[in-house]
Amino acid sequence: MEHDARYMALALELARSAAGQTSPNPLVGAVVVKDGEVVGMGAHLKAGQPHAEVHALRMAGERAKGATLYVTLEPCSHYGRTPPCADAVIQAGISRVVVAVLDPNPLVAGQGVSRLIAAGVEVTVGIGETEARRLNEVFFHYITTRRPFVTVKTASTLDGKIATVTGHSRWITGEEARGQVHELRRRHDAILVGVGTVIADDPELTARTAGTATGRQPVRVILDRRLRTPLDARVVNDGKAPTWIVTSAEAPAEKRAALEERGVTVLVPDGPVTVEQVLDELGARGITSLLVEGGAEVNGSFLRARAVQKIVAYLSMKLVGGAGAPTPFGGPGLERMDEAVTLADVEWEQVGPHDLRITGYPVWDSES
Amino acid sequence: MEHDARYMALALELARSAAGQTSPNPLVGAVVVKDGEVVGMGAHLKAGQPHAEVHALRMAGERAKGATLYVTLEPCSHYGRTPPCADAVIQAGISRVVVAVLDPNPLVAGQGVSRLIAAGVEVTVGIGETEARRLNEVFFHYITTRRPFVTVKTASTLDGKIATVTGHSRWITGEEARGQVHELRRRHDAILVGVGTVIADDPELTARTAGTATGRQPVRVILDRRLRTPLDARVVNDGKAPTWIVTSAEAPAEKRAALEERGVTVLVPDGPVTVEQVLDELGARGITSLLVEGGAEVNGSFLRARAVQKIVAYLSMKLVGGAGAPTPFGGPGLERMDEAVTLADVEWEQVGPHDLRITGYPVWDSES
Repeated sequence: MEHDARYMALALELARSAAGQTSPNPLVGAVVVKDGEVVGMGAHLKAGQPHAEVHALRMAGERAKGATLYVTLEPCSHYGRTPPCADAVIQAGISRVVVAVLDPNPLVAGQGVSRLIAAGVEVTVGIGETEARRLNEVFFHYITTRRPFVTVKTASTLDGKIATVTGHSRWITGEEARGQVHELRRRHDAILVGVGTVIADDPELTARTAGTATGRQPVRVILDRRLRTPLDARVVNDGKAPTWIVTSAEAPAEKRAALEERGVTVLVPDGPVTVEQVLDELGARGITSLLVEGGAEVNGSFLRARAVQKIVAYLSMKLVGGAGAPTPFGGPGLERMDEAVTLADVEWEQVGPHDLRITGYPVWDSES
Repeated sequence: MEHDARYMALALELARSAAGQTSPNPLVGAVVVKDGEVVGMGAHLKAGQPHAEVHALRMAGERAKGATLYVTLEPCSHYGRTPPCADAVIQAGISRVVVAVLDPNPLVAGQGVSRLIAAGVEVTVGIGETEARRLNEVFFHYITTRRPFVTVKTASTLDGKIATVTGHSRWITGEEARGQVHELRRRHDAILVGVGTVIADDPELTARTAGTATGRQPVRVILDRRLRTPLDARVVNDGKAPTWIVTSAEAPAEKRAALEERGVTVLVPDGPVTVEQVLDELGARGITSLLVEGGAEVNGSFLRARAVQKIVAYLSMKLVGGAGAPTPFGGPGLERMDEAVTLADVEWEQVGPHDLRITGYPVWDSES
């Protein structure tokens, strides 16, 4: 079992090496081990190209016979753009397969493993499962819920303020942290803010990183029940990225027409504009990952809806004070400290000279 | 110079080894180096016993002749409980002395060094100065200002709340962090809170650590302008530590008499009750270090008065939300983010499974 963990860690590392280039497919790594020696390694590199197992089996060649295959995701059992990996594994003569996690798609989960077992291959499932899920956290979440994986990004002072009492917030964090936020945006399908942020800051809401000078930009999503977005706002006029405004049926029709005329997509979910409705709407439109960069109210509404999968909190080593200064999560809030939402798998790292980045995953009761 | 830094680091390490046992004297370490070899080491261990230089010179013996002495604090030039160290250094035949920092007492600063130079000893000052000041931060602050060194301790959620919207705050941090706070209290001469905390939580405000079961307890200082402290509060009745209540001249005389009858010391500073007045009053009474564990208002008033030397912030990896929930520093607050008080020499460390401790030193303009 100790060996299993070690080889699976290697397979996870191989999978990670292709980060950012496999979309819409997940990251997958595979290792073939024969008599205590690694005889094959592979990773899925690009959609349409061979799966990780196939690369690893090819490298192993004849030595795959009687070997153990470590793979970070259940081998597929269906014909997609490539033939089923489970069949390739069986044909190569692999005698044991160690799988980190089953296919998240409930329609096919377990079928690859069943096929292997039916062919007499010994199968172990669950080694490195947590890491394997994190590795493809967006993919797993979207495929099971059809809603985007929501990351809330905050930036606050050490005393918990996202702005001063007057609303002034430039800048809380330093250059390095702000640079990271652009990279974070680049890795998301969409960015979401409330209309209050658009009115107050007129932000561009684009990913300004070297890699995106000419690349794809995330969709800019504005929550704006009454369509208060100014017609001269950057997100309406600059044409730098798609802008979607989520509003309610009561919003004025002429404002809607004026926005649409300028190229903005105006979405009106069925029924009241709730966080759940917004996520359903975005998921239906193929948004798999959403970066929420709201003010206190918007972030608070996502927290209240228990619709936060990940937190990326930048903390600046400074103090501003102010009983009335806004904090990262506003709204009504929880009543008791012992009901607080705890974070799991927390990591922190210094960013630039004065900032700290803390990431973690809220643990919702339904999961615990 | 590279060697100087290395030997001074060793002297600082020696000084640190006596932490907590030299009061009211500072921590001091010394190293004697001859021809690239360490020939003597020493630290000041206890008030009334030899200074660090004397221990190091004794160990070096004859080899001190023509050697270099590294010492973390300027050798003294006056007769106290022990003879002047500067004379001992000269008599031992030391040819060069490297001093981290001059004596902080403005009445004698530089006199030890002058005496050495007058005797033909080469002197270098300032190697490791920052560390040497931090090592005796309380001593340096008190001797130069006659006010206590103020550490503000806070405990908040990752979203910056010290309580929920209803005021509920048990518990923000875990057992380990709460244990550290008792140790922090033990190392201070006094703890300060506002009367609001006494009314809301009726805290004991003692250092409950193994080492203090029968030991000295810090003084409990309550800011209470109108003498609203309940007569049945623990701090008034439990006799576990001295309690000083700082109030104003307008406070009701009969309440004051009732509190004094129960053993409480009631202090009435001249003029309005300001943070500066309170610190003067405490300093005059020999309080060299003060741990402020206020709520948002009290902490905010210390921040506003620029009377915070150190921050110890515990951050719990949880979220509670709430636009109206209190934050570590309240009050009016600063208006612009670019006026925020930055922290220097920041360090962080995980405490228990879910908490992070961040320490730092506010940089006030007058110092920069």
